[in-house]
Amino acid sequence: MTVHDETGLPGDRRFFNRAGPFNITVLAEKAEAEVKAGPDAPSGLALHGVAPLQAATAAEVSFLDNRRYLPLLTATRAGAVIVTPAFADKVPPHCTALVTKNPYLAWARVATLFHPRRSVRPGIHPTASVAETALIGRDVEIGPFAVIEDGAKLGDQVVISAHSVVGAGVHIGRDSRIGAHVSLEYSLIGERVIIYPGARIGQDGFGFAVGPSGFEAVPQIGRVIIEDDVEIGANSTIDRGSMRDTVIGAGTRIDNLVQIGHNAMLGKCCIVVSQAGISGSTELGDFVTIAAQAGLIGHIKIGAKARIGAQCGVMSDVDAGADMIGSPAMPFREFFRNVAWVRKATKKDMEKKEAGSTPPVSEKPAI
Amino acid sequence: MTVHDETGLPGDRRFFNRAGPFNITVLAEKAEAEVKAGPDAPSGLALHGVAPLQAATAAEVSFLDNRRYLPLLTATRAGAVIVTPAFADKVPPHCTALVTKNPYLAWARVATLFHPRRSVRPGIHPTASVAETALIGRDVEIGPFAVIEDGAKLGDQVVISAHSVVGAGVHIGRDSRIGAHVSLEYSLIGERVIIYPGARIGQDGFGFAVGPSGFEAVPQIGRVIIEDDVEIGANSTIDRGSMRDTVIGAGTRIDNLVQIGHNAMLGKCCIVVSQAGISGSTELGDFVTIAAQAGLIGHIKIGAKARIGAQCGVMSDVDAGADMIGSPAMPFREFFRNVAWVRKATKKDMEKKEAGSTPPVSEKPAI
Amino acid sequence: MTVHDETGLPGDRRFFNRAGPFNITVLAEKAEAEVKAGPDAPSGLALHGVAPLQAATAAEVSFLDNRRYLPLLTATRAGAVIVTPAFADKVPPHCTALVTKNPYLAWARVATLFHPRRSVRPGIHPTASVAETALIGRDVEIGPFAVIEDGAKLGDQVVISAHSVVGAGVHIGRDSRIGAHVSLEYSLIGERVIIYPGARIGQDGFGFAVGPSGFEAVPQIGRVIIEDDVEIGANSTIDRGSMRDTVIGAGTRIDNLVQIGHNAMLGKCCIVVSQAGISGSTELGDFVTIAAQAGLIGHIKIGAKARIGAQCGVMSDVDAGADMIGSPAMPFREFFRNVAWVRKATKKDMEKKEAGSTPPVSEKPAI
Repeated sequence: MTVHDETGLPGDRRFFNRAGPFNITVLAEKAEAEVKAGPDAPSGLALHGVAPLQAATAAEVSFLDNRRYLPLLTATRAGAVIVTPAFADKVPPHCTALVTKNPYLAWARVATLFHPRRSVRPGIHPTASVAETALIGRDVEIGPFAVIEDGAKLGDQVVISAHSVVGAGVHIGRDSRIGAHVSLEYSLIGERVIIYPGARIGQDGFGFAVGPSGFEAVPQIGRVIIEDDVEIGANSTIDRGSMRDTVIGAGTRIDNLVQIGHNAMLGKCCIVVSQAGISGSTELGDFVTIAAQAGLIGHIKIGAKARIGAQCGVMSDVDAGADMIGSPAMPFREFFRNVAWVRKATKKDMEKKEAGSTPPVSEKPAI
Repeated sequence: MTVHDETGLPGDRRFFNRAGPFNITVLAEKAEAEVKAGPDAPSGLALHGVAPLQAATAAEVSFLDNRRYLPLLTATRAGAVIVTPAFADKVPPHCTALVTKNPYLAWARVATLFHPRRSVRPGIHPTASVAETALIGRDVEIGPFAVIEDGAKLGDQVVISAHSVVGAGVHIGRDSRIGAHVSLEYSLIGERVIIYPGARIGQDGFGFAVGPSGFEAVPQIGRVIIEDDVEIGANSTIDRGSMRDTVIGAGTRIDNLVQIGHNAMLGKCCIVVSQAGISGSTELGDFVTIAAQAGLIGHIKIGAKARIGAQCGVMSDVDAGADMIGSPAMPFREFFRNVAWVRKATKKDMEKKEAGSTPPVSEKPAI
Repeated sequence: MTVHDETGLPGDRRFFNRAGPFNITVLAEKAEAEVKAGPDAPSGLALHGVAPLQAATAAEVSFLDNRRYLPLLTATRAGAVIVTPAFADKVPPHCTALVTKNPYLAWARVATLFHPRRSVRPGIHPTASVAETALIGRDVEIGPFAVIEDGAKLGDQVVISAHSVVGAGVHIGRDSRIGAHVSLEYSLIGERVIIYPGARIGQDGFGFAVGPSGFEAVPQIGRVIIEDDVEIGANSTIDRGSMRDTVIGAGTRIDNLVQIGHNAMLGKCCIVVSQAGISGSTELGDFVTIAAQAGLIGHIKIGAKARIGAQCGVMSDVDAGADMIGSPAMPFREFFRNVAWVRKATKKDMEKKEAGSTPPVSEKPAI
């Protein structure tokens, strides 16, 4: 079977809303961009959609924010292209440039204009199980087989997708959207929060004491607090606190398959990329970035705007603004300097030995 | 919206049971601790709950087991504090010390007294789908939309939460609790086991042979055996065996997002921390600890009480009691000695070069 | 409770189908193997099942493909054993050898003969929620509480297990099987695809722009394309594309807890082992292997047949056929040479210092 269709263009009408057309001036306003029409560009240009540079036609708008794709810009047939001032004169003559210092943000807004997020479809699916004591706001959408337990509270225009479970007493602020198969317990969730399918929020933290006949559970009597505008990726897990709350600061973005341990506190607008893990009681300042597969030990503090690289293993506090990488974590420059030095020194040693007819260091490690 | 409430104290009454008050002698007995009242402490002290040192009032009991929080102890207003003998004389005069060699275990028991685990609520939710051939014990709780397939067998007082699927023929021992959205297939599960939301137990292992026109599946005809008192974290996955069983030994604790491959055998009371992975056919002795994000290759043996550090990559057998870290894994001391030596040697080389006006080693690695 | 049963043999009748007995010649044909009966082997041998070498009886067939288990072969009581030509003469006299160059493939086929995959049970469970506009093929099986949304299309003999959600417009090709608790959105799925429980396919990619008051979402208007014969492991996540499709090439095998970022493109017959992560827009050629817990940065290309080792961190393009390991990634030989050299040099330095009575390098790193 061929599952690809002919075009491969974005915005497949089977899946996505489509608005428009929009005049170039409407797009420019939305994008906070300046219009610079090429010498051969039509006036009163109307755009019907978005497309990548290599596929766009005269009816579509595209964008460039990465120098490596510059050849695609000069060859594009797009009607309009969002670019930085540096690339404005590289736009072909038939094309209109939308010039802005932040083309990716402009792109986000223009693409959202053409493909707006789907609207809330108010109503409770007949198969959903909603407790009588639950408080349901106005224009709430509750999908098939969703479970809303006693005392849960949903703000206006909240969306609860198919099969999600909102545990007893959980609050969800207005305009938040919960994907399919999510479980929420012991949690207070802010406004405009998005939780993707399969995320697990509020279960017991990993806490136990060593008793005479095995491990004994330590009650986990804190909650999970998710502030406004947070997003949490698919199949990620956030444990509730043991003695205080686990807190995700406003605006923070968490990717898929991330683990957040009990009592962790993340600041505002942090970014935590896929498969990273933050151990219990660790605290992040605002605007901290944790790259993919990085791991943070428990009970440490990461200063504001610090950046933790992919696969980094952080075992102690990190200063604000620091760039760390490696396992154990080191400043970015030092880590790569060490790597380069070891490579060079090993090679030199090999060459010396070969020259002196000494057998080379075994390639099979002893481990 | 403010999702935090004013106090942030543990034990939010919307979410947690609360028992008590309890007399200090009751707590001391439960904690197996000795009562040492301060000179200004009231007699016949009754405690109403638990709280952290910095928030506790005269009606609450707190605990200290980490030297770094000692300043909080001397300043606390708590009515009672659980401490080790070493800290007993640091407790303020108004306060009663509960002195024990194992304060964390004592804390687990005292906190459980105030916040007991929620009781089983016997009954089958009307929306659950229970096969006629399933054997259901006494006082079992089955939540909304749960599925119990043919020939499944649930012991007394088992809890199956919303949306979980207990596959055909699966056995679950008494007093076990299965969280929401769990799937169980081809598995035999012991008593007092806890499985957290979204865990996947018993699916096919990752096994295939290379055939002339692509991969061909190898039937996975073993099971998953989970012995008594095991806990398995949210969204963790345990594949069933191919030719023998995958076995999780009694009392073992597995955290969130852990992967256990087919035919793996874990001993008793092992600890496997978040995002660690154990490949197929690998065997762990008793009391092995695998820290977060560590990975074990397949077909190796880890001796009893060995400790595998965070992000460690283990490619060969590990002796009982060994402490390993690094990727590839090395003894703990050797790994950190190597790291320290490379840092020092690289720095020395840099300084020498700078002194001799040679351009420094490039900071951008060749890779 | 004892959850183990007496035998521990594979193929527990409570869980697995069982066919047979089969004559040795039928097995040989299926296995594309040559029959070499031992001097004391019975003629007209009929086999009733499969078992490991150490447990097999005269009625069972076993196999050996790893030299390390050779002692088990010489001691086995199995009626027949699948082996390579090199081991054919090591089979005991009472036993019949099935000789083939690819014993693991032969094993896959023979074991499948005895334990065939369970058949489709056509029918829609009465609790399932199927949209009127969904197109359902012949002999489709839809389990309890499954949700099939508007415009979804299921090919003949598709299986949708309990609690899975097939989103609006999603296509699934014939003979594909979707496990329990899977969510599928914005996806086109080929034939004979298997998706294991809890996988999340088609949710928004991790894309946002930095705006003046926080992050702003970038619409993700691509899809997920899963070609024929792909398998996707439990709790793995595959995000849909932002501007183009995320594509998983035909025959590719993805293990549990794997993350595939938006716009990633995997070639044919790739293998991606547990907990590995492939960042956005990265492209894999055909027959690429990514071992467990490896991570690939975004926007790079991995050449055909390259092998990326466990926990490897790949930050740049990799040539076809290359063997890479380490973080940052290096050629396999170079990585282990570096590790060996550092271990040796550190040890030498330690010894020199000890000899000269200089205090040793601190074992506690500065970090």
